[in-house]
Amino acid sequence: MERFAVIGLGRFGMRLARLLAEAGAEVIAVDRDRDLVEDVRDQVAVAVCMDAMDESALRAQGIDKVDVAVVGIGTGFEDAALTTSLLKTIGVPRVISRATSNTRARILTRIGADDIVNPERESADRWCHRLLAPTIMERLVLAEGFSLVQVAAPESFFEKTLKELAIRNRYEVNVVAVRRTIQETDDQGRTTTRQFIISVPMPDSVIKPGDVLLLIGSDDAIAAFPTD
Amino acid sequence: MERFAVIGLGRFGMRLARLLAEAGAEVIAVDRDRDLVEDVRDQVAVAVCMDAMDESALRAQGIDKVDVAVVGIGTGFEDAALTTSLLKTIGVPRVISRATSNTRARILTRIGADDIVNPERESADRWCHRLLAPTIMERLVLAEGFSLVQVAAPESFFEKTLKELAIRNRYEVNVVAVRRTIQETDDQGRTTTRQFIISVPMPDSVIKPGDVLLLIGSDDAIAAFPTD
Repeated sequence: MERFAVIGLGRFGMRLARLLAEAGAEVIAVDRDRDLVEDVRDQVAVAVCMDAMDESALRAQGIDKVDVAVVGIGTGFEDAALTTSLLKTIGVPRVISRATSNTRARILTRIGADDIVNPERESADRWCHRLLAPTIMERLVLAEGFSLVQVAAPESFFEKTLKELAIRNRYEVNVVAVRRTIQETDDQGRTTTRQFIISVPMPDSVIKPGDVLLLIGSDDAIAAFPTD
Repeated sequence: MERFAVIGLGRFGMRLARLLAEAGAEVIAVDRDRDLVEDVRDQVAVAVCMDAMDESALRAQGIDKVDVAVVGIGTGFEDAALTTSLLKTIGVPRVISRATSNTRARILTRIGADDIVNPERESADRWCHRLLAPTIMERLVLAEGFSLVQVAAPESFFEKTLKELAIRNRYEVNVVAVRRTIQETDDQGRTTTRQFIISVPMPDSVIKPGDVLLLIGSDDAIAAFPTD
């Protein structure tokens, strides 16, 4: 398992440090704020209250030996930039830095950041897609102009087979999987809900009410897909 | 096209307002900070400097008539909560509010928020997946324990057909699409790069170096998928 340093325990860094540690990774969590460091102490391998712009302190904590360092500092661009630069200087192979604007992202990349995180930007991009196409539950951009989306099956599809619907010819999209939610009642009358994935839909697969279709297609074709 | 109000023009709200307007939607952008309002004035239908906790001002600007209001206020939970409540009171059908913690998300939902945005949390979740499985380029959670991921085709797959590889039987995942990057040189010797999607891979489809595979499977099966 790789070793990680997470520097800056704001909302982004704190959650990331916890998630990585929960998944079994060795995490060194660093912040200047003693309270934040205390909050995460029991959940990560090492929690240190220190100034991440102090090269010898970084080395003393073994941060030069991690595989990936994430600089989650969201406020104080100078701190984020200096820390990024220092982490590359001491030999961290992969440094991911949080930027709050495109200009800052460019500067961090020039300083040596291998990847940029911009939570607000990423989130706004995703929500824009969701709001403009409310029937689309999630979108994964596959290539320019091509996406995979999850769409609630329109009512006009219910109880028809994929062959009858001729989705590929009619709408120029491909159904690559179907997510179905089923309710099961056991012999004590308890109802449980279970979701499963039909990951190779066949021509004779029947669409049921509540099904979610996973479609691949051009963004234009997806925009024209029926929503009832 | 639906009408949107974006209240709070921080990094998240500002980007969202611009993206929605660029896509042709009618956007009312609201902030208390005159500079932020000026920044977006030329890009949206209406930009207003006002206190979003003033019911009559909201109505005067027609915010009671929008289809969706997004409360992007990230600092000042009281403001976010009051604005959310007020928007529901004046009859906005869908209100999406930004929360910076789970507790706040619960409160906003009880007040009437129809959806919650938490950019830092969403981003940390995605980055955790990416960091733990660096060969996985992107992941879409389809159901509990089931995902769709994009993975670089391992070298051992190159020049083999899907039938030869027997991916489904060997690795318990399905290849639902392949992304291929091709370089084309025109008669003037200019090289362009183009990506396309093979959205119905056939048994005799051959995997090429540089291909990206889109796999669906259980999270365990995906974790065990070869990376060379």
